[in-house]
Amino acid sequence: MLLLHLSDVDEASWAEKLRAALAPYPVVRQSEPFDPNDIRYIFVWKPKPDAFDGLDRLKAVLSLGAGVDALLKHPKLPNVPVVRFVDEDLSQRMSDYVVAHVTMHQRLYSRFRADQKARRWNQLYPPASSQTAVGIMGMGVLGQDAASRLKPLGFALRSWSRTAKAIEGVEGFVGPDQLDAFLAGTDILVNLLPLTPETTGILNYETFGKLRHGRLEGGPAIVNAARGGHQREADIVRALADGTLGAASLDVFETEPLPAESPLWDIENCYVTPHIAAISSETAGVAYYTRIIAEHEAGQPLINVVDRARGY
Amino acid sequence: MLLLHLSDVDEASWAEKLRAALAPYPVVRQSEPFDPNDIRYIFVWKPKPDAFDGLDRLKAVLSLGAGVDALLKHPKLPNVPVVRFVDEDLSQRMSDYVVAHVTMHQRLYSRFRADQKARRWNQLYPPASSQTAVGIMGMGVLGQDAASRLKPLGFALRSWSRTAKAIEGVEGFVGPDQLDAFLAGTDILVNLLPLTPETTGILNYETFGKLRHGRLEGGPAIVNAARGGHQREADIVRALADGTLGAASLDVFETEPLPAESPLWDIENCYVTPHIAAISSETAGVAYYTRIIAEHEAGQPLINVVDRARGY
Repeated sequence: MLLLHLSDVDEASWAEKLRAALAPYPVVRQSEPFDPNDIRYIFVWKPKPDAFDGLDRLKAVLSLGAGVDALLKHPKLPNVPVVRFVDEDLSQRMSDYVVAHVTMHQRLYSRFRADQKARRWNQLYPPASSQTAVGIMGMGVLGQDAASRLKPLGFALRSWSRTAKAIEGVEGFVGPDQLDAFLAGTDILVNLLPLTPETTGILNYETFGKLRHGRLEGGPAIVNAARGGHQREADIVRALADGTLGAASLDVFETEPLPAESPLWDIENCYVTPHIAAISSETAGVAYYTRIIAEHEAGQPLINVVDRARGY
Repeated sequence: MLLLHLSDVDEASWAEKLRAALAPYPVVRQSEPFDPNDIRYIFVWKPKPDAFDGLDRLKAVLSLGAGVDALLKHPKLPNVPVVRFVDEDLSQRMSDYVVAHVTMHQRLYSRFRADQKARRWNQLYPPASSQTAVGIMGMGVLGQDAASRLKPLGFALRSWSRTAKAIEGVEGFVGPDQLDAFLAGTDILVNLLPLTPETTGILNYETFGKLRHGRLEGGPAIVNAARGGHQREADIVRALADGTLGAASLDVFETEPLPAESPLWDIENCYVTPHIAAISSETAGVAYYTRIIAEHEAGQPLINVVDRARGY
């Protein structure tokens, strides 16, 4: 039996679709009566403190999100495999966001918008994308998808990751020792890292100061599509004010929703979106977990299992 | 002998580079003494009324620009081949502009910017690029380059051109009869047409009304990277005001520089840039025309010759 425990999303709609796809395999919602000993899988989003109570015969925890940093901090998370949602549709949408914001900064959007407001006709030619280096932090599924879409646009690409990833046309940098070299050649920094103790707060003033200055008019830019915990917002405010950064696109925040009193809302060259870079679609989620449950019930191993020591 | 007649650009710099590249072939500037009967080629940008006077032994006119609409209107243009500048670097920069503005509109930039100004956290998920149809008008070198870069991003692509162009992954529409069908399925319209009597004013209110409505929040968008003569600016103002268009990116204008009194400057969802989408680089231009002159002097036919009846 599959138990749904979904907060802040339309659980009824998920239940209807999963029941149709998994039938005759039974699906139950938290609000419905069930025997905890019947539950083999739990499908969760933002689980409450008692979400896992009594589920002693669980085979796996299935996460609605691709990021599992919050889930792994749940104090009562059972010691069974946790499966991440790896969603092609989500990768496409995330790359859509990344490409739109990278190209916006490469084309000096902030500069031309300021000129427009001043009714100023000031011809300045942006560098070609081939003269612009995009550095991607995190080369998992999302990072690799973003790289594959930025490459045909002509950008010079570099990546930074925990382990070496050999990707054609991408200059790879690995681990803490190579971070500074990675940053020194980067004009536009894209964060797609998982949130772990090692990556928390990595988007800070010191990091921004190490990016390449002088290539992009106004300063280098950052695009954070991963987690608010990666960024130090006070440092972003300071860096945008003093030119250490030329622009920042932020889809995630230390506190969400972004509090009304945050200074980020009012900064002209800070581009705030309300954590909408990508969402898992119900259609994709139902197809993905239907397949995972069917294959696992047929005796096959689970895929996309989280490494708890690594944190993702 | 090659004569340079370049207005509004750094002719001295072009002269220096062309002399170095073409030597021992002689290069002369308009301001220097020369015998008109020695001139075989003239390299022009914005030629003055007397630019061609006395050049009776000319073999070809070489244009610094890719667009030759203004040049073809010169009352004394000699009856010799006119060569257009086809520049890979220019195609790259033009596509950079097109991709940046297409993706900006696909990601509902205007909507999120308005929300940011109002400090409003309003989660709305843009359609995936695969659910968004980009229609490219004009499938010459620039249109094909733009298509080749938009395709890996996942967009649904359609094209409209004077003659049929079979391009994989692009749904082709041809000629005036198929314009309405082309527009009816287009969410974001990109203009890369040459300016001819047939295409003058094609970006007008009636055209905008035929675009697909309902897919992109706020309305369909246009991106004009070709010529100001293609657009009716009064119609754009009206269409942006009444929702017939959701957004417009304009790099070119009926009058340039865009006059200070134009209403376009102040429209929030109109994105004005000062004709900087792409410029021919001196390096690329010198390499291109050095090769053209050398090959033609060696007896080979000219390439990229303008068809005057067609207008480009």
